[in-house]
Amino acid sequence: MKVGILGGGQLGRMLALAGLPLGLRFVVLDPAANAPVGQLAKHVLADYDDDAALAELARSDVCTYEFESVPEAAARAIQSTTPVHPTPEALRIAQDRLNEKLCFRELGIPTPAFEAVDSEHELRAAIAKMGLPAVLKTRRHGYDGKGQFLLRETGDIASAWLELGGVPLILEGFVRFERELSVLSVRGLDGATAFYPLVENHHEQGMLRFSRTPVPALAPEQQKRAESYAVRLLDHMGYVGVLALELFEAGGQLLANEMAPRVHNSGHLTIEGARTSQFENHLRAILGLPLGDTSVPEPVAMLNLVGGLPRREDMLAVPDAHLHFYAKQPRPGRKVGHVTVRAPDAATLDERVARLEAIIASD
Amino acid sequence: MKVGILGGGQLGRMLALAGLPLGLRFVVLDPAANAPVGQLAKHVLADYDDDAALAELARSDVCTYEFESVPEAAARAIQSTTPVHPTPEALRIAQDRLNEKLCFRELGIPTPAFEAVDSEHELRAAIAKMGLPAVLKTRRHGYDGKGQFLLRETGDIASAWLELGGVPLILEGFVRFERELSVLSVRGLDGATAFYPLVENHHEQGMLRFSRTPVPALAPEQQKRAESYAVRLLDHMGYVGVLALELFEAGGQLLANEMAPRVHNSGHLTIEGARTSQFENHLRAILGLPLGDTSVPEPVAMLNLVGGLPRREDMLAVPDAHLHFYAKQPRPGRKVGHVTVRAPDAATLDERVARLEAIIASD
Repeated sequence: MKVGILGGGQLGRMLALAGLPLGLRFVVLDPAANAPVGQLAKHVLADYDDDAALAELARSDVCTYEFESVPEAAARAIQSTTPVHPTPEALRIAQDRLNEKLCFRELGIPTPAFEAVDSEHELRAAIAKMGLPAVLKTRRHGYDGKGQFLLRETGDIASAWLELGGVPLILEGFVRFERELSVLSVRGLDGATAFYPLVENHHEQGMLRFSRTPVPALAPEQQKRAESYAVRLLDHMGYVGVLALELFEAGGQLLANEMAPRVHNSGHLTIEGARTSQFENHLRAILGLPLGDTSVPEPVAMLNLVGGLPRREDMLAVPDAHLHFYAKQPRPGRKVGHVTVRAPDAATLDERVARLEAIIASD
Repeated sequence: MKVGILGGGQLGRMLALAGLPLGLRFVVLDPAANAPVGQLAKHVLADYDDDAALAELARSDVCTYEFESVPEAAARAIQSTTPVHPTPEALRIAQDRLNEKLCFRELGIPTPAFEAVDSEHELRAAIAKMGLPAVLKTRRHGYDGKGQFLLRETGDIASAWLELGGVPLILEGFVRFERELSVLSVRGLDGATAFYPLVENHHEQGMLRFSRTPVPALAPEQQKRAESYAVRLLDHMGYVGVLALELFEAGGQLLANEMAPRVHNSGHLTIEGARTSQFENHLRAILGLPLGDTSVPEPVAMLNLVGGLPRREDMLAVPDAHLHFYAKQPRPGRKVGHVTVRAPDAATLDERVARLEAIIASD
């Protein structure tokens, strides 16, 4: 069986590492010569609008994508001859924050307040309605906190417009959330679904730095609630594969922030932490294989390695720590790896995480 | 860091799969064009006595080997410029059943009775001393039950000699063992050691078919006893890496049958079953990294897939089953993959194993 992947970054790399033991072969389309997937796949070095390259990917048994900025047209082109999972429709929705929020609203999934904004006049009108603080975001091409402007007072409007104006925007109410959570879900070709336990995420400057599960002191109904939101999205889109839904927990509510129609950084802890990793389950799903057990037997945390790689010997001296280097050239602000750590109880996990944080901070 | 591996079979493949997330690169010497390690390593396609090929491997940071029939001379040649772990001395000992048994004896590790046999006359003398049944084996190049002859009565002597005579042989007393066990041990560059829980192994026609841990109804002293035997071997050889020691459990004793100076088929269940797999721990050891936790949190079993690969969808329908295909062309008697399964308790594990056995049997 050959699986085509649009994108050859670390997510493609980890998909391949999960799929090789399943006897799968991979072909990856990525315009970067040094894509992290490296020798794990046949690398088609071309742009996402290269017809010959797309045709080569379409000679796979099934295709998928590993980041949500893949042009929808690329996925649709392949789909004309070869199954593409998740559906390209998920790209269309997730690539535009307004479409995404409208989809949440249509499915009864609570979200922060939001308004489409295409002019400075509309921005002022939206602020008058929603109040401040609020966050102005580009509708498209935002990731890791890029393309966002936090407005605290009306004096910020001009500079926000200066920085982001001219492309379609969305203004979102600023949510004073207690914490950020995510739910990783997976839906098989037969419509079966499975859900990983909610993960707590910590961001810095818009970039994920730390994830853990179980979420401390989580109200028991939140897991079911998150799953009910995820399943609405999965079923609505006829989705096949892993879907990540990011949520704000605020005042006992869960508000949908955004979704990622792919394996997700907050699910990396499933490699060691869950009975079946998000990567294996994504592949099982798109190949029509039975989904694997998503349970997480004991506390687990993940720390991203950003900008550089601390010494292996320091990190591996922490009990039950496991490294994942992405074969990427380190540079400031770049995710170049992650480390996962498990522990028999939450207190021990906290200690191990603190040790790893100290190692990462001193690097 | 670049790791050279003599041998590119499934063990080399699984070493590479464990090492790529650690940020390692691999170069493999294997004379087979379609070696399972495939694209996971740079493949040097040459014989083990090819000087240029050995020199290319020696340009790694450290070299290792993944099967014990690698010519000792190849490992020694690399060692003249580059560290080789485990020591080539372990190859010298393990490649000759007589050397191996003498080493066990020297270290006070109990073994079945044995005698060197180089002529039919010596064979008759050894049988007179040891009694029957007994097993005549070639001292070198035996594996998976090949090069062995079970003598039940004196009438078998002539045919045994006819089949095996002419090369150095060893006669071993036939042990009416209760079961076959193995202990996987690992020793770091700094001399630190760690041990996996004893594994119970079932063979058919000399080939491993099934392994599981924990071993049912194991007397508690057996783990410590096995570890004490393993540590004698590790320290005696100044060994670095994973060492497998196969044992017969007979009348409350453990008798050393043979050792493998490498990662071992009975350790494949550590990939999902242990906190750190034998493959990762072998790499950690030879790179001078801290050894990982070898504990196995819950019951786990492994079934070899021999001669063919059952349908993925059938095997993955068994809860917590995980596949490992080796990218080898199926043919009768050839190990082409394995499946690992975990369970919360021994009874559930037995059920899941029975389901997998039925799937494999009906393939």
